[in-house]
Amino acid sequence: MGKWLLPESLADILPAEARRIEELRRLLLDLYRTYGYELVMPPLVEYLDSLLSASGGDMDLHTFKLVDQMSGRSLGIRADMTPQVTRIDAHLLNRAGTTRLCYCGSVLHTLPRGLWATREPLQIGAELYGHAGPEADIEVLQLALESVRRAGVADYRIDLSHLDVVRALLETDPAAAARADEIFNLLREKDVPGLAALGPDLAPATTQALQVLPTLYGDLDVLEKARAVLPALPRISQALDMLAALAKALPGVDIGIDLADVRSFNYHTGVVFAVYCGGWPNAVVRGGRYDDVGRVFGRARPATGFSLDLRELAGLLAPATASSAVRAPWGLEPDLAQAVRALRAAGQIVVQILPGHEHDQQEFVCDRELVLRNGAWRVEPLASAEPAARPSPSTAI
Amino acid sequence: MGKWLLPESLADILPAEARRIEELRRLLLDLYRTYGYELVMPPLVEYLDSLLSASGGDMDLHTFKLVDQMSGRSLGIRADMTPQVTRIDAHLLNRAGTTRLCYCGSVLHTLPRGLWATREPLQIGAELYGHAGPEADIEVLQLALESVRRAGVADYRIDLSHLDVVRALLETDPAAAARADEIFNLLREKDVPGLAALGPDLAPATTQALQVLPTLYGDLDVLEKARAVLPALPRISQALDMLAALAKALPGVDIGIDLADVRSFNYHTGVVFAVYCGGWPNAVVRGGRYDDVGRVFGRARPATGFSLDLRELAGLLAPATASSAVRAPWGLEPDLAQAVRALRAAGQIVVQILPGHEHDQQEFVCDRELVLRNGAWRVEPLASAEPAARPSPSTAI
Repeated sequence: MGKWLLPESLADILPAEARRIEELRRLLLDLYRTYGYELVMPPLVEYLDSLLSASGGDMDLHTFKLVDQMSGRSLGIRADMTPQVTRIDAHLLNRAGTTRLCYCGSVLHTLPRGLWATREPLQIGAELYGHAGPEADIEVLQLALESVRRAGVADYRIDLSHLDVVRALLETDPAAAARADEIFNLLREKDVPGLAALGPDLAPATTQALQVLPTLYGDLDVLEKARAVLPALPRISQALDMLAALAKALPGVDIGIDLADVRSFNYHTGVVFAVYCGGWPNAVVRGGRYDDVGRVFGRARPATGFSLDLRELAGLLAPATASSAVRAPWGLEPDLAQAVRALRAAGQIVVQILPGHEHDQQEFVCDRELVLRNGAWRVEPLASAEPAARPSPSTAI
Repeated sequence: MGKWLLPESLADILPAEARRIEELRRLLLDLYRTYGYELVMPPLVEYLDSLLSASGGDMDLHTFKLVDQMSGRSLGIRADMTPQVTRIDAHLLNRAGTTRLCYCGSVLHTLPRGLWATREPLQIGAELYGHAGPEADIEVLQLALESVRRAGVADYRIDLSHLDVVRALLETDPAAAARADEIFNLLREKDVPGLAALGPDLAPATTQALQVLPTLYGDLDVLEKARAVLPALPRISQALDMLAALAKALPGVDIGIDLADVRSFNYHTGVVFAVYCGGWPNAVVRGGRYDDVGRVFGRARPATGFSLDLRELAGLLAPATASSAVRAPWGLEPDLAQAVRALRAAGQIVVQILPGHEHDQQEFVCDRELVLRNGAWRVEPLASAEPAARPSPSTAI
């Protein structure tokens, strides 16, 4: 097998795409900074039980395992950075009030999470700790939407849900609570016949409510419909009020409601959301509330946040345009060196052509060149990007 | 054991240090870009044999191994990004002429490379492929020095060596060539008695030259001394000429020569260098020529480059100063939202104080606040960074 072959669902990011991703990375980290979110950089690997203790559901299966020869203990490569950031908030920073943190780094999955998914998403996200009220959810939602807007996505919508709706149904019916995992799976599949066939041990009101949940999907009118058809439990009313308040705080945004969205039920605790962009079928941003996850690190705290994969976001955008550069000859003369240095200090890309490589193709579009005229180095337009390799119709400027 | 505990020699990077590292990362990637180096992002893991085939020496022992459940094959977590970038040049880009590439990412080592070393360096570097002449070495040396200079290190020096000196001695004496590994170890330890005791199977001229090598260390005068005491072999003269030419191309730089520096003999092929900063005992930047390493990927190419650990470089610099920010009240009123948005769009950090958190300590130094005066939102100076939490002597402005 070729030594250059990469494992399945892993890929190099080549210059044009890397430049686009780097631009997005800076744009988003700078955006989060203007909202007061501070950057942290947790390590690539941690003790496995730390990594998994604050993560929900199937993270164990998605986490690569290693043996640490220094300690003999099991390490995991992070498959999600949120648990790490929660650990930093709970243990390292240990601030009394609100803490706003952001991060950007590669995570690794043992298996791709879909047919076209990479096993190495470049995760970027923001988390707000220490505030239980809706204001924190609103700030995080605004920031999530601003992320796709600033990246240049014109066509996006957000789906909102609240896990307390399902939780309220389960807590009023012990027979349903005992079969929670089965019910979540049926809801995830939107399997209405399966929900109808759950059996006589569940209260008829529970079965009826669970069957109607997958139909509670659509625009904001769904909230009124839900009030009419779901049991009048206080926890359900509060959840629906909360969703209505969030929608009101996001004027002009295309908002959908999906009350059967229980994908992250093992992890999230309240409002959950997903931002969809253009025709892309998968959510580009996912987020929501995950109160008290920091308890395993010694401090239960309200928490809400979101994350996205920079590679995926970059893939939705037009490719970065090739940068224009200045061609300069090779040489150690102080005047030339000074002219090159001054251009570079001003942010210009200057490619010095090494001897014998005058006719190489350049990745950059060299549209100018540094030439010596009457004893002074000057930047002049280049008639053609590659004049020697591809003779232009008119070589005289 | 506390779930918050991290494995030995691994650490979180907290906000103040993360900000400094992020600033350096952008500064250096932008610098490399102005020299025409294009960014690439290879994956965190690859097939183990690909990773190790283009790396020299002890990389196998330093590489964490995994099993890929998709292929059943062994994967390695990169311990060095240079072999990956070489693979990209050789196989993916496959350009005819010179190729300039740069990269920045975490690498992982099974064991720390020193008492205080991290097992997760944040490697940043630049590589120039396709040019065998000294011009490429000069460009790479200039860029390595410019990296520490632009980072703000005032006190630096560079050590130069050329592996052809030792290579020439070995190729003229088969008995020495047969014991190359032993000789490299003795040279690395600068063990002159050990070199003297190598035994009668080596030619006396070889033994004598090997013994004198560890003394050929110091300023540029060493080059003349080497010409006088080393055998008059053409390959040695050319190497010394090359080092003299490089020194001449770096006017004003504090240059040392160390002809016994064979640390990277398994990997490098010609000029090697190390940049030392301030009182720090270890080299901060390491680089040199590694021609033909891409052969395992199907294309032997001249290659030269350097890399450094951003965490280490950041540790040598003064900590980043805390950023100043604007305090703003929470609220959804369009006028307030507009005022906050305008400040953030101008790059200002605006921390909206969530209800009930008016007295929290903030990580940012809030030296201004957004206040409503006569119906308009205005930024005004804040008398004290934390006026409510720490009553200032004079609360009236």
